[in-house]
Amino acid sequence: MSEDRADLIRKIKNTDTFEDEKLARDIRNDMVDIVSKTGGHLASSLGVVELTLALHKVFNAPEDKIVWDVGHQTYAHKMITGRWNEMKTLRQLDGISGFPKITESPYDSSSPGHSGTSLSIALGYAKARDLKGDNNHVIAVIGDGSLTSGVAWEAINHIGEEQTPLIVVLNDNEMSISRNIGGLSKHLHRLRTSSFYNKLKSNLKKVGGKKGQHTLASIRDAVKYSILPRDIFEEIGLRYYGPIDGHDIDSLVKMLSFAKELERPVIVHVITKKGKGFKPAEDDPTRFHGIGHFDPNSDCSEKKETDIKSWSEAFGDALLECAKKDDRICAITAAMRDSTGLNKMAWMYPSRVFDVGIAEQHAAAFAEGLALSGMKPVAAVYSTFLQRAYDEALTEICLQKLPVVFAVDRAGVTGADGETHQGIYDIAFLYSMPGMTIMSPRDEETLNIMLKKAFNMDAPVAVRYPRGKVITRSFKSGDGTPEVIKQGHTLMIVSDANMLDEALKAADMIDSRKGEGYAAVADIGTLKPLDESFLAECFKKYKYVITLEDGVFRGGFGSAITQFAAEKKFGSEILNIGWPDAFIEHGSIKELRERYKMDASGIAERILKFTGDLN
Amino acid sequence: MSEDRADLIRKIKNTDTFEDEKLARDIRNDMVDIVSKTGGHLASSLGVVELTLALHKVFNAPEDKIVWDVGHQTYAHKMITGRWNEMKTLRQLDGISGFPKITESPYDSSSPGHSGTSLSIALGYAKARDLKGDNNHVIAVIGDGSLTSGVAWEAINHIGEEQTPLIVVLNDNEMSISRNIGGLSKHLHRLRTSSFYNKLKSNLKKVGGKKGQHTLASIRDAVKYSILPRDIFEEIGLRYYGPIDGHDIDSLVKMLSFAKELERPVIVHVITKKGKGFKPAEDDPTRFHGIGHFDPNSDCSEKKETDIKSWSEAFGDALLECAKKDDRICAITAAMRDSTGLNKMAWMYPSRVFDVGIAEQHAAAFAEGLALSGMKPVAAVYSTFLQRAYDEALTEICLQKLPVVFAVDRAGVTGADGETHQGIYDIAFLYSMPGMTIMSPRDEETLNIMLKKAFNMDAPVAVRYPRGKVITRSFKSGDGTPEVIKQGHTLMIVSDANMLDEALKAADMIDSRKGEGYAAVADIGTLKPLDESFLAECFKKYKYVITLEDGVFRGGFGSAITQFAAEKKFGSEILNIGWPDAFIEHGSIKELRERYKMDASGIAERILKFTGDLN
Repeated sequence: MSEDRADLIRKIKNTDTFEDEKLARDIRNDMVDIVSKTGGHLASSLGVVELTLALHKVFNAPEDKIVWDVGHQTYAHKMITGRWNEMKTLRQLDGISGFPKITESPYDSSSPGHSGTSLSIALGYAKARDLKGDNNHVIAVIGDGSLTSGVAWEAINHIGEEQTPLIVVLNDNEMSISRNIGGLSKHLHRLRTSSFYNKLKSNLKKVGGKKGQHTLASIRDAVKYSILPRDIFEEIGLRYYGPIDGHDIDSLVKMLSFAKELERPVIVHVITKKGKGFKPAEDDPTRFHGIGHFDPNSDCSEKKETDIKSWSEAFGDALLECAKKDDRICAITAAMRDSTGLNKMAWMYPSRVFDVGIAEQHAAAFAEGLALSGMKPVAAVYSTFLQRAYDEALTEICLQKLPVVFAVDRAGVTGADGETHQGIYDIAFLYSMPGMTIMSPRDEETLNIMLKKAFNMDAPVAVRYPRGKVITRSFKSGDGTPEVIKQGHTLMIVSDANMLDEALKAADMIDSRKGEGYAAVADIGTLKPLDESFLAECFKKYKYVITLEDGVFRGGFGSAITQFAAEKKFGSEILNIGWPDAFIEHGSIKELRERYKMDASGIAERILKFTGDLN
Repeated sequence: MSEDRADLIRKIKNTDTFEDEKLARDIRNDMVDIVSKTGGHLASSLGVVELTLALHKVFNAPEDKIVWDVGHQTYAHKMITGRWNEMKTLRQLDGISGFPKITESPYDSSSPGHSGTSLSIALGYAKARDLKGDNNHVIAVIGDGSLTSGVAWEAINHIGEEQTPLIVVLNDNEMSISRNIGGLSKHLHRLRTSSFYNKLKSNLKKVGGKKGQHTLASIRDAVKYSILPRDIFEEIGLRYYGPIDGHDIDSLVKMLSFAKELERPVIVHVITKKGKGFKPAEDDPTRFHGIGHFDPNSDCSEKKETDIKSWSEAFGDALLECAKKDDRICAITAAMRDSTGLNKMAWMYPSRVFDVGIAEQHAAAFAEGLALSGMKPVAAVYSTFLQRAYDEALTEICLQKLPVVFAVDRAGVTGADGETHQGIYDIAFLYSMPGMTIMSPRDEETLNIMLKKAFNMDAPVAVRYPRGKVITRSFKSGDGTPEVIKQGHTLMIVSDANMLDEALKAADMIDSRKGEGYAAVADIGTLKPLDESFLAECFKKYKYVITLEDGVFRGGFGSAITQFAAEKKFGSEILNIGWPDAFIEHGSIKELRERYKMDASGIAERILKFTGDLN
């Protein structure tokens, strides 16, 4: 069995429809079983099982380059390219990544994570092929949701210009993570529902029922009379074929074999169903987009640890309260309405919540327009995706000092999604934006207070909070100003809210070695601007000042504090603790904190080494 | 005359064609005269004089919102909205900005600078209007070049979804800064050359020759029978009208009046000629895109100060030498081929130079694909525009440790283009990218050496160099390692190459006060990674270590050096000098350095204050 699986990628070229369909069932069954234990992006991966098989039947990876957009739909691809047995380690520390990784397999042609770049990468592969005089095929597989992202359009424009052979498989599952958005989606809908769909389908069916009977010429005839006369992609220079049934391996193989022969850029429009083959995921693909452990045999309910709110829900509740009192407040999401907690406000005030598609740049510039009109927009975006809006946030929103609130969700290390999804760069990249305030709430009430403050500030503000559940604490909530949470006389740990518990535990550990009341801990509340008088007091009082943040240590608030101390010539010894200048792999947040000495004992150890109390 | 001009925006509503055409001539004559003295974006502004007049005749700014994309085409707009007399201060310190500025005039509805955001901003204005129950009009004016940028497409998709009244004026001058690129451009060309153009033109002409004769209904009839049956914009949900002659005020007024009445998103395709009305600019619009002082009466040759190469030319020459020896080297530009110095390589190796349109995200991700195929791509991008590719550079290129070279042109304060164009953030945002090397060449030979090094590194590298001419120095070239240029015993200024001359002069000034040989200066060569052994030596030897960089002082290499010193507990006193945490306005580089104490005497003063030698 194991050997069979290791050799699947070779065998699959010669299997017939019956065997392919059996293999698809096996893949699905195992995939559901695995993801029920590991968690993961189930619905997307279930949706492309047949497409994955067809691609690997028609093309010869790794010579032919199959570039998966985003990459969370590649579980079947991983299973048939020699990683089936390792799939049980999916998304776990040192296990198989939930995304393609060039370091994991030669069959992974890129290491994506964010939407829309597959077309650019594929064109890079194609032009390199041309320059080298090679003749391999290049295929990009992109979802209809990803196609709303700007970088994808930039690439389509360039593909239309270059006119080199390249196959774009548009995997149209009629939704991205939330419902699909925009004029493009309507266009795709028209293509889907046009009579050409059924015509193409029946034409392809007619071409040889049994294996081997059909010739390329007969496929060409079947396809030729099915295409739409004109459409957006045709206008930009990609020959359009489709739409075809993405769960019919035979049709897919025929169509891809045909596309392979064309010496030009082609778009093949494939209709798939997210969650295909697993009823609970078909019925609720949004829930099964990214899911934790679940029981596939009972009601599939996710194993909830507690009923405590997530930070996203807490934000959504806080926002709704603000929105009730001020009708200038609007919310924007880039295809993440529910996961950023905006669903309640969308229910109450649908006209004031905008889902703009996977389009973070536009989300920021659209917020800018609203703010210029006197509205108070909040853009709720995961830290890692906010990276896409760096330019607009800096050059337009901060430059004009506009009251745009960025609700930076999943800030800090986020865990199992790994390198492409850790939210550890936002402090650094927001810090160099003039006039940007950055707040870090330590509990739900603090989040409420900060959000209200943010809406009253008439300037850009980022409120950043982590993935996971809100924390209930034994001490009162904060208000954004620095606050000493634990007293001490010699050493002060100035922490952001994400790291506060580790800081407090580390301080206790240090006390246990150096004596009660040695180490103090403060929650800095606001990361930017710095409260210079509070810090000046710290530097006067403490021999050691340690900064601690859930972000890269380069360019974070710790570095700003160190600069301040240097400029003012405070004599304290200073150490900045944060995530290292490296990419942080997948694993649980707990495991990653341990590995990088960002848990309490790791922090205590680093501090005691710094103070010379540990060798 | 002055009063006439102050009141132009009101009067213009009632002028007839004859008066409009005279005004257009006056504007052009004065504009050429002014820009010949101040320098500026002449060709674009000349191209939209009639369009500007038509917009202000039909719409009631500032209640109606006219959102100009990029904004360098707004000189006529500025002249007729109360700033004609101040135009002589264009782009000069404390003078009129070369771009719209919300702080400069209520008629400026945004403060853009980078391409493609006008549609998002306009949609923000439109949705805010809807929410507030207002009924003003919103118009975005976007060039065909800007339309290739991803953010513009993200916005079009959302505009198609929202279906609220909004007018997009597509100002098609058949080129962006270099030639226009991509499938979209071909599509626009088909629209332009279709028979509908002339049909619409003649239909519009038929509607009333004299003022007042035409009714809205007759315009509607004229337009109704002219539109193309189907096109990209129509498919996404914007009603398309055009193309029409952008220099025919009467037709423009008719068309805009018609579009104004439609209760839906509309795109009006307008054909203009860059440089219109000034022969030298019509003949060479690229040269007159952004131009320095010139003599409008003679041969219009730019007043060249010297024949010394610009940094962009030096880069282009260095690149060509590398490209001759290694055919894996490819170059990518985002619509800036000539201004980034790629023209020579494009001439020699056209297949290895890619102009991808105004599409920095795609430029980076396309480079990624090339690098994944074993090529050695260099993306030549201005520092300020590289901001658009932050996510791709970080999450894809650095994450995969790919050999992509970023030639970061116009790095540091760039001068007259002002706030949106200063290249002072790249050090900070590149610094937090794991594995990114950042180099700073001090002369042409150093640039050659660094570029060769970069192509041999098999990892991402940024080589950053300033706007302006390369510098010839009395001392030898560098190789990327830190080097002490001026000896001294007590104080060390560690500088990047951009600031090296100011550092040397400042050191001499300090010496003149503190005694010969007091202050040393080192060129750090490579900003990241730090040469820790060199720095350790500095901290051992010098009482004061000053860092100096042509970038924001937050998060730059200075802050990393301060962190390093703090962690290692070196006893030196450290001061980080760079641009402040603020936006830097327009003015000459010299003036801005003076104002922000970034010139030699300002630097010397700051250092002497720090060392306690000045109060």
